Amino acid sequence: MSDINITRLDASSADFNRQLQHLLAFDDADDLEIHQRVLAIIADVRNNGDKAVIDYTNRFDHRAVTRASELELSPETLKSAWNNLPAEQAQALQTAADRIRAYAEHQKMESWQYTEADGTVLGQKITPLDRVGLYVPGGKAAYPSSVLMNAIPAKVAGVGELIMVVPAPGGETNELVLAAAYLAGVDRVFTIGGAQAVAALAYGTETIPAVAKIVGPGNIYVATAKKLVFGQVGIDMIAGPSEILIICDGKTNPDWIAMDLFSQAEHDENAQSILISTDVAFLGAVELSINKLLPTMERAGIIRTSLTTRGALIKVSDLNAAVDVANIIAPEHLELSVEDPEALCKNIRHAGAIFMGRYTAEALGDYCAGPNHVLPTSSTARFSSPLGVYDFQKRSSLINCSQAGADTLGKTASILARGESLTAHARSAEFRIK
Amino acid sequence: MSDINITRLDASSADFNRQLQHLLAFDDADDLEIHQRVLAIIADVRNNGDKAVIDYTNRFDHRAVTRASELELSPETLKSAWNNLPAEQAQALQTAADRIRAYAEHQKMESWQYTEADGTVLGQKITPLDRVGLYVPGGKAAYPSSVLMNAIPAKVAGVGELIMVVPAPGGETNELVLAAAYLAGVDRVFTIGGAQAVAALAYGTETIPAVAKIVGPGNIYVATAKKLVFGQVGIDMIAGPSEILIICDGKTNPDWIAMDLFSQAEHDENAQSILISTDVAFLGAVELSINKLLPTMERAGIIRTSLTTRGALIKVSDLNAAVDVANIIAPEHLELSVEDPEALCKNIRHAGAIFMGRYTAEALGDYCAGPNHVLPTSSTARFSSPLGVYDFQKRSSLINCSQAGADTLGKTASILARGESLTAHARSAEFRIK
Repeated sequence: MSDINITRLDASSADFNRQLQHLLAFDDADDLEIHQRVLAIIADVRNNGDKAVIDYTNRFDHRAVTRASELELSPETLKSAWNNLPAEQAQALQTAADRIRAYAEHQKMESWQYTEADGTVLGQKITPLDRVGLYVPGGKAAYPSSVLMNAIPAKVAGVGELIMVVPAPGGETNELVLAAAYLAGVDRVFTIGGAQAVAALAYGTETIPAVAKIVGPGNIYVATAKKLVFGQVGIDMIAGPSEILIICDGKTNPDWIAMDLFSQAEHDENAQSILISTDVAFLGAVELSINKLLPTMERAGIIRTSLTTRGALIKVSDLNAAVDVANIIAPEHLELSVEDPEALCKNIRHAGAIFMGRYTAEALGDYCAGPNHVLPTSSTARFSSPLGVYDFQKRSSLINCSQAGADTLGKTASILARGESLTAHARSAEFRIK
Repeated sequence: MSDINITRLDASSADFNRQLQHLLAFDDADDLEIHQRVLAIIADVRNNGDKAVIDYTNRFDHRAVTRASELELSPETLKSAWNNLPAEQAQALQTAADRIRAYAEHQKMESWQYTEADGTVLGQKITPLDRVGLYVPGGKAAYPSSVLMNAIPAKVAGVGELIMVVPAPGGETNELVLAAAYLAGVDRVFTIGGAQAVAALAYGTETIPAVAKIVGPGNIYVATAKKLVFGQVGIDMIAGPSEILIICDGKTNPDWIAMDLFSQAEHDENAQSILISTDVAFLGAVELSINKLLPTMERAGIIRTSLTTRGALIKVSDLNAAVDVANIIAPEHLELSVEDPEALCKNIRHAGAIFMGRYTAEALGDYCAGPNHVLPTSSTARFSSPLGVYDFQKRSSLINCSQAGADTLGKTASILARGESLTAHARSAEFRIK
């Protein structure tokens, strides 16, 4: 196997910013044809409900469903998936679920209010979503850990009913996924997928109840459908390829760092693994580790493509320069494999999750550290956050004016409303002036 | 002027749910032609920067701009707009700004972390967005109150730079809007609008800096452009027509209730004003008030169309039934004009803002009560929240594993990763096991 050829950059070079933008660029253009095909599926499901869902499911998932009720898995099916799990896997899933739940409990928002001197009360009331849909991909990309990461925060938020959809190509289901659904407390599971599943959750059918929000990853049809039903329901972020950025001072075992880079690269050819170091000799050592370890990896082909086309080893003059690069990249996963990660972390402004210290492998966060592994990709950490309990709660403003408060506020509102020529607003306020 | 004809419904009738859905239905279908026109404008601005922005601005806003620098208003222009304001309006805007800021301070999220027994630290770090774009419509729909409501929470969040865009048709600007921008601490103002302004903010040009998130209302081109740049930047919700739902026990002055209904109806023909009462005689009294007051209103034509086509008076058997209807509607604005609004409020699950008691006119909340007037419309209160400080902050997960923590977690992660056939993940975790 030939040595791998990874892009080398130097942050002090005059052309670095342009090179970095080129490295990060990822063409994720909207495909108009897919867009139109998905629009048609959504319209069909809205108009024809179960019948359309059955037709698409039979066609795309090679099934022979005749009644919509066949699309739902019984609670017993989920329970027996859990009961049939090897003890070691059950124990590991249970540990992960417990830790995800414990962390999520810290994210719960609470209602608050305060009373002003004149007796007027202002506040914010927190309520959970009534019903949420969780999309789980079928086939090889079916990850029980993702079921836990999406379902547990919803349950902690107090969501009334959690509906999971997962395609069952040829009728085949993934027992680990069903076991995770059982463990996470998913309420109902339908074996449907694709744009038709998203449409069914958004608008409801005779059999599948409409939800308030749809979360979870999927292919381009699922992602497009989620974008198109946004507004009718809430959605989580549209996920791009996975990324890791590692900042290392050169004193971590290079094999560890190489394997950490692999752990993103193995996800898919478009995944992006970048290492930044102040120590150019260390970059060389990691490259040697990469070439040493690559032939031993199950997914060597995917890793090689990912590292060759999208990976990079970046030399910086000092750790502050590394932080500057990290803030430009706004990575999904950021490992601070350095002596004093707290000091560095203070200046990090944009990252989905920050893994601090040499022992905090990103993979620990993927499964069981507790924080969510659903994270903003493609630089969206500049404006968005990990999936959390807060995504399954919402706020209502509370305003309760005393008579005195309405008198004072009414005068101000009247002036401003008349300034905007909204006289019904003004007169409505003026009625409450003494 | 003929009496107005408002839909009457009875929640106890067998057909009520269908009638209610019919009343709420609002066709807001995506227009493919607008979609494609906006896509072209975005591509043009991405490729040609300032030149494209100038071209569209000259064409759509009837201007004769030759250099991009002409598009920016000077700080002095904003300051003098504020200085030239009549004292009464300046005082009212200042009062509103102070109250909006005081309420917003309660929404600020703070970082947190906790340490586990083995020394592992988990937490969440809060950071503000670097730079935000605020879209302000030009012409008659230019509301200084909206500038305050969008800009102040961003500033409270600690956003580094706030860029406002507002079209200036024929070169005309709205002095009240500029004064509000000055008061709210907006950093830079460009007189551009439409899809070209959204594209410029999303991707940046030579003159207009790229932002992380775009907020603020706009016409269908602006709304479509915001949808299309979502992902490149964050956006707030896409606002539909304004709505008010009033629940009244029949003991509030019917003139007050009529004017509260008008205060939404005057916004636009598609606005929706609905009154629910247990007292059918009161519904009649409000109808009389409507017909008495309507001829005195500046926007009588708009109000009449709105109330006739989208308004309703709904009779319910008791206040619990009213709450059930409110939870189906999930209104933007909900007035609880009853004796004990706290009792009713407990059971409200979905509403953008809740106005409690007979003195709390919705108009007070629009201007100066403190809570934001940017609220989820069209039933989206089922899954989304008022605009707030939290929309201008984001979270990063923090994970700092001790050596002991990595040892324990590594074993769990290894089992789960191997269950998902992700062996680089597994080996990365295993490297940290003692």
